[in-house]
Amino acid sequence: MRIQVNKDKLLYHLLIAQKALSSKTPNPALQGIKLEVKDGTMVLTTSNSDISIRVQLEDNGLEVEKEGTVLVPGKYFIEIVRKLDGQTVSLTEGEDNLLRIEADHSDITLNLLDLEDYPELHFKEKEDFLKIKVRTLKTIIRQTAFATSSIENRPILTGVNFTIDGEELEGVATDSYRLSQKKISLEESYDPMNVVIPGKSLEELMKILEDNQEEVEVHFDQNRVLFKYNNVLFLSRLLEGNYPETGKLIPQEYPVQIKFNKEQLITSIERASLLSSRDGQNAIVKLNVRQDNVVEISSNSPEIGRVLEEIHPVDEIVGSPIKIAFSSKYVLEALKVFNSSEIIVKFTGEIRPFVMTGEYDEDMLQLVLPVKTD
Amino acid sequence: MRIQVNKDKLLYHLLIAQKALSSKTPNPALQGIKLEVKDGTMVLTTSNSDISIRVQLEDNGLEVEKEGTVLVPGKYFIEIVRKLDGQTVSLTEGEDNLLRIEADHSDITLNLLDLEDYPELHFKEKEDFLKIKVRTLKTIIRQTAFATSSIENRPILTGVNFTIDGEELEGVATDSYRLSQKKISLEESYDPMNVVIPGKSLEELMKILEDNQEEVEVHFDQNRVLFKYNNVLFLSRLLEGNYPETGKLIPQEYPVQIKFNKEQLITSIERASLLSSRDGQNAIVKLNVRQDNVVEISSNSPEIGRVLEEIHPVDEIVGSPIKIAFSSKYVLEALKVFNSSEIIVKFTGEIRPFVMTGEYDEDMLQLVLPVKTD
Repeated sequence: MRIQVNKDKLLYHLLIAQKALSSKTPNPALQGIKLEVKDGTMVLTTSNSDISIRVQLEDNGLEVEKEGTVLVPGKYFIEIVRKLDGQTVSLTEGEDNLLRIEADHSDITLNLLDLEDYPELHFKEKEDFLKIKVRTLKTIIRQTAFATSSIENRPILTGVNFTIDGEELEGVATDSYRLSQKKISLEESYDPMNVVIPGKSLEELMKILEDNQEEVEVHFDQNRVLFKYNNVLFLSRLLEGNYPETGKLIPQEYPVQIKFNKEQLITSIERASLLSSRDGQNAIVKLNVRQDNVVEISSNSPEIGRVLEEIHPVDEIVGSPIKIAFSSKYVLEALKVFNSSEIIVKFTGEIRPFVMTGEYDEDMLQLVLPVKTD
Repeated sequence: MRIQVNKDKLLYHLLIAQKALSSKTPNPALQGIKLEVKDGTMVLTTSNSDISIRVQLEDNGLEVEKEGTVLVPGKYFIEIVRKLDGQTVSLTEGEDNLLRIEADHSDITLNLLDLEDYPELHFKEKEDFLKIKVRTLKTIIRQTAFATSSIENRPILTGVNFTIDGEELEGVATDSYRLSQKKISLEESYDPMNVVIPGKSLEELMKILEDNQEEVEVHFDQNRVLFKYNNVLFLSRLLEGNYPETGKLIPQEYPVQIKFNKEQLITSIERASLLSSRDGQNAIVKLNVRQDNVVEISSNSPEIGRVLEEIHPVDEIVGSPIKIAFSSKYVLEALKVFNSSEIIVKFTGEIRPFVMTGEYDEDMLQLVLPVKTD
């Protein structure tokens, strides 16, 4: 391999590939980035246990003097390219499994990793695939993935359950204390589908997706899913097992409904979280509807003090007064993914899950289980 | 105590006082901020084992309904004020050692700390004090304090040694591997003085000093120093013991002198640090003057690879070729405090300390001990 490449473009693509770079791995080859130069272009590949990325370098000025494939130590290569001066970098594969990196007045030699140890990866595109707008995909991920479980004792809950039914795509996530659900309408009808994609994979995918009007192709396979976005192929494993039936968790009737200004509700809960018997975001906060239709948000920590917030709801409260306690972390995280500035909180009973919806967040529902207090 | 105060102004002054707030302390009272309301103003006081701060609130709109002094739990009080809505906060001392904080629709009650446990602090101003421009004081701290030792085995080296001789103020810091020295001319003559101020105290002081043309008063006492800056009194303990004679460390003659572009030297050393047998900033880097007057900056790590940087000095090199190795951290930290864009590096011998100076950094000298390599 012997090429000349624009430094900034190389770095840009390296930083995409970096999202799937392993830091700790039993296979040292996975600490490497595979650089394949062939047919006038360069392809960068990385992989860890959850995801693999394959990105084609977009650089019209790329000069290929000799084709070839090398496996560079990822962390060092990225740091070197980041720090180089000059516009152009020359990469030359030398004898003894070395890569020579030349730019401006720098002459750097890097020991390469063994290409033979690199696993074969299958970025296989299917004939039938789902087409979805980048923005729509980002919305459904942003509004669900935060609610996945971070604890591994029920691995299936660490993923988001995506199902397709005709023209409807639904994403659901729950850690068994709260649940997020978002449905979107697709532009055409698809065969039924039901997969669980790891939440962490989706978080990494989000970092690569830009905010634009383009489309992403989603290719589903037996135990993996491939996202194709511009010059990037993003492969994630799927979680095995049956995702729990979540429909039953969602109450069908809500005798009490309160419409809040979202920002006011968020800041009140945040202040109440400051002084609570449990630390930080796991604070337990109480919500109490008074007879005079004022909502109290409160917390109490005998050692530190207490907070009492009064909120006048946006509309008249529907239903009779209610008292409920919840973990502020769950409610705050849910509130923050709404686009609407007004939120309707719907209650079924003091120990039943309550639900949040917003007028400008169509087909999106956030559910939180209350906490029992004495 | 019962007052109404502007929220933003209160927060601004709390964040100054916070610099001396203890987080871990055997005396829980030191986790508190003392609020003293008297004669129509409020004074905030904090203290830890190294420094104490006393800041007078500047708020023309302060309304004092009742004077008094309370000790609020610092961390919680700052977080509450930060999160409050509304422009005005009302603070009311209640019975049972409670403080009631009211703003907008929030009603918060905080358990106060015991005022009796708070130590008496002596922010004592002297009749004779040093007057120095804020900017000059910041320069001398910025160019010396980074070179103090962070290891406690020789406590005296964790401070900066300040001496006054007539109209000259000198600051010196060394951790025994490198040394920083800066002299400035004062506007008048003072009695001789020799103190060692903890580097950490100076770092906190730096955060409070703004970038302006104002003056700071420095009041020296037996075992402490008081900085008076606008409405802030900043008290630091002094380090006890004799500061080592550092003058002898500085070579008197420099047979080899090389003038570098500072940025080029910094980026070359940074790149060489990336691949070095020792991790990160403690990397050992070699400097080698070639017969053709090109300077090589290089490093070598058998496992990872090697870096070779070529630098053409700004002027012709004075003296004969030299080879030297050093810890990149020390040289980089020293280079970064220079205002000059060209740096002269002066060598006495391959195992003798070398020195850096810059035309626009008058009376400033940075010294680094080389490292022996085989």
